[in-house]
Amino acid sequence: MLFMVEMTVRIPHSLDPQVADKIKAEEKAYSQQLQRDGKWRHLWRVAGQYANVSIFDVKDADELHTILTALPLYPYMEMQVTALAQHGSATAQN
Amino acid sequence: MLFMVEMTVRIPHSLDPQVADKIKAEEKAYSQQLQRDGKWRHLWRVAGQYANVSIFDVKDADELHTILTALPLYPYMEMQVTALAQHGSATAQN
Amino acid sequence: MLFMVEMTVRIPHSLDPQVADKIKAEEKAYSQQLQRDGKWRHLWRVAGQYANVSIFDVKDADELHTILTALPLYPYMEMQVTALAQHGSATAQN
Amino acid sequence: MLFMVEMTVRIPHSLDPQVADKIKAEEKAYSQQLQRDGKWRHLWRVAGQYANVSIFDVKDADELHTILTALPLYPYMEMQVTALAQHGSATAQN
Amino acid sequence: MLFMVEMTVRIPHSLDPQVADKIKAEEKAYSQQLQRDGKWRHLWRVAGQYANVSIFDVKDADELHTILTALPLYPYMEMQVTALAQHGSATAQN
Amino acid sequence: MLFMVEMTVRIPHSLDPQVADKIKAEEKAYSQQLQRDGKWRHLWRVAGQYANVSIFDVKDADELHTILTALPLYPYMEMQVTALAQHGSATAQN
Amino acid sequence: MLFMVEMTVRIPHSLDPQVADKIKAEEKAYSQQLQRDGKWRHLWRVAGQYANVSIFDVKDADELHTILTALPLYPYMEMQVTALAQHGSATAQN
Amino acid sequence: MLFMVEMTVRIPHSLDPQVADKIKAEEKAYSQQLQRDGKWRHLWRVAGQYANVSIFDVKDADELHTILTALPLYPYMEMQVTALAQHGSATAQN
Amino acid sequence: MLFMVEMTVRIPHSLDPQVADKIKAEEKAYSQQLQRDGKWRHLWRVAGQYANVSIFDVKDADELHTILTALPLYPYMEMQVTALAQHGSATAQN
Amino acid sequence: MLFMVEMTVRIPHSLDPQVADKIKAEEKAYSQQLQRDGKWRHLWRVAGQYANVSIFDVKDADELHTILTALPLYPYMEMQVTALAQHGSATAQN
Repeated sequence: MLFMVEMTVRIPHSLDPQVADKIKAEEKAYSQQLQRDGKWRHLWRVAGQYANVSIFDVKDADELHTILTALPLYPYMEMQVTALAQHGSATAQN
Repeated sequence: MLFMVEMTVRIPHSLDPQVADKIKAEEKAYSQQLQRDGKWRHLWRVAGQYANVSIFDVKDADELHTILTALPLYPYMEMQVTALAQHGSATAQN
Repeated sequence: MLFMVEMTVRIPHSLDPQVADKIKAEEKAYSQQLQRDGKWRHLWRVAGQYANVSIFDVKDADELHTILTALPLYPYMEMQVTALAQHGSATAQN
Repeated sequence: MLFMVEMTVRIPHSLDPQVADKIKAEEKAYSQQLQRDGKWRHLWRVAGQYANVSIFDVKDADELHTILTALPLYPYMEMQVTALAQHGSATAQN
Repeated sequence: MLFMVEMTVRIPHSLDPQVADKIKAEEKAYSQQLQRDGKWRHLWRVAGQYANVSIFDVKDADELHTILTALPLYPYMEMQVTALAQHGSATAQN
Repeated sequence: MLFMVEMTVRIPHSLDPQVADKIKAEEKAYSQQLQRDGKWRHLWRVAGQYANVSIFDVKDADELHTILTALPLYPYMEMQVTALAQHGSATAQN
Repeated sequence: MLFMVEMTVRIPHSLDPQVADKIKAEEKAYSQQLQRDGKWRHLWRVAGQYANVSIFDVKDADELHTILTALPLYPYMEMQVTALAQHGSATAQN
Repeated sequence: MLFMVEMTVRIPHSLDPQVADKIKAEEKAYSQQLQRDGKWRHLWRVAGQYANVSIFDVKDADELHTILTALPLYPYMEMQVTALAQHGSATAQN
Repeated sequence: MLFMVEMTVRIPHSLDPQVADKIKAEEKAYSQQLQRDGKWRHLWRVAGQYANVSIFDVKDADELHTILTALPLYPYMEMQVTALAQHGSATAQN
Repeated sequence: MLFMVEMTVRIPHSLDPQVADKIKAEEKAYSQQLQRDGKWRHLWRVAGQYANVSIFDVKDADELHTILTALPLYPYMEMQVTALAQHGSATAQN
């Protein structure tokens, strides 16, 4: 099933920039693997924000939670999760 | 460019159900035409709500505004618009 | 999977009390059938409010949406849906 | 009587990870003892959040307060407490 | 146990003033009976508002809910309920 | 006249626990003196929170401000002040 | 003592304009009498809003409540009341 | 023209108390000079808060901004500015 | 001086469409006259909303209030006013 | 197309003032270059705040995001982005 996840990143100013860069690189690799696996179906940047809007296609909330909490940036993120259903007017299936 | 639009429908209880049904049928036809045209790229139902999350692919904010205000349900909708940019970790192009 | 759903009922003062009573009776019968079916696992009253906290056990967000929008009081309700996952410290399985 | 408690954990980045792990282990043991005692009746994870939704079955608000403030993670938690009453349509007794 | 209840009254302008006056008189009689019974322990007016702050001394949330929903003005009220515990520095017992 | 004051305490994790304990002990002594003086008429704990609901009986806002800002925990508190008037249905005088 | 009162007027579109004009004229006369009496010490318009910021100089919250609820526009107003104390840096006495 | 400015002071716990006292003394002297100059027309303490409500009488928003940003406590303040106009029922001119 | 004004229009569904159209035509003429006069310096549509962002260049808050309250759509608008000052990095004068 | 961007700057008290001054100087140079290029069309100070209201004229959200995230003060800013369309009553073209 599909979930919309809105993620906002708040890296503290006190974090060592090299450590931050390493975490961001790991985040990128991890997110791209999930995209290739079809789990992280869409990933868009919110213009002007260190934030994204994402669509996940997972078995259930347990799988979603496992994926999200494994994000390298997870300790610095605020997340908002919205469960999505099939829309009666959509021409595509979820 | 892409916009996320979150629409919530609030049809007043005083609206004649037949009129409401007619508007909803027009809304469905109009939204499906826009989906076939590639303008309304995604349409998901927010679970438990008379609301949706949509992704529009339009030339600019003027085209988006023209499309949204022509929705048959527009007078009964609250809209929230978010401009989306390419995410650096996305494997797909917007 | 499990969802917490918080429902608040706002019946307009203009609704005929007899019509309102009939809808409430239908709501009660429908909710009790869902409880017996194991779909509506818990139903608690929020003290002092015309509102409840509920736990639903459904296949996915589509089934949840179908159930909720079929509630006789649905047109008069505000809903907040939260997807629940297994908690690592819980002694019971979801 | 029953209370819904929504807990959100915010461990400061400055906390020593070993100290944090020790507190989390104590939290788990304490919460499982309370579950076995029937005081902490339900414990669910909010998907995507370091947060839970819990149902407590206690004598009154004094007992609830004593239990909650004794949580090892209490200094790092935000809590929201909602008093629950018997719902007239519920097939089970609170 | 004690609950703080904050009530705000919103009588619609369309309500017949004579009906409103009758409901208010019933509300007053009912609230004074509850005060004499020791259930409604304190009742204060919020300055400048058609609102009050109240302290109820009841057996549990079920009794509170029964009392509040029986208020003649209940259909026109918004309520906020807060469960109160004994404060460690209070010189009086709850 | 009466004021309701809602106090929430937020002691920073960086504060030395011994210093914190000393401030809390002074706070307790100070608050109990004010209760004995009849200035701090009621003091209740908000269940699950490091917070209280209090009723003060003072000459005016100047006396209230003097009392509150002298609280040993004042630098770590958020306060919300509500002026209370006599309620027309109250059986007791403020 | 002094109170800041922020008043916002929301006259329903259904109110007869002649009735509205009569109420506004009464409101003006009443407010000017209170200004001459020194009770309503300041009255400013919030630019662009049907709202004002006012300073009242009254004996206590009871007198304030009596004055405010007697305003001809009171049934159509939202009020926010803030108790004011003497500021240590003010060159004038309240 | 007149502006209402609501200022809330949040001095970090890490600031050296002697430095803080020096800034507060400068703030007091500066604010009193502005009061004598007729620029800072009113200054009231919000009861229970490290906050004030102020009325400034300045040429325009540029002069207001220059004055406010020169406040010694400005780096530790949150400000809310409201432009005020002449009220039609006011007996005094702004 | 300059003010940013954010206007949101909420025309009630009960308003006669012909009356609404007449008011909108008057609004357009009035706003265009003010633009030609240099008072209403900028007028932008918020994409997807029956709302605008405007910049007014007026003598003071009194002139702004007079202009805004004379808008034919004023009874159906919510307004938010922000006073603007010269920005130190702006290459243009306000 | 046009975007309104509202920026609020929150420089931490722990930042070295010389570093802060250097960043602000770079910010000023960068913003003035963008103004000369016609990308940053308007820049106004919000009176009393370390904040601005800006209008950007860019190709799309990607260009906007690139410009904003390159601001020297970006790590210390909160941004709110609003997409603007042509207003039907505007006498000027966007």
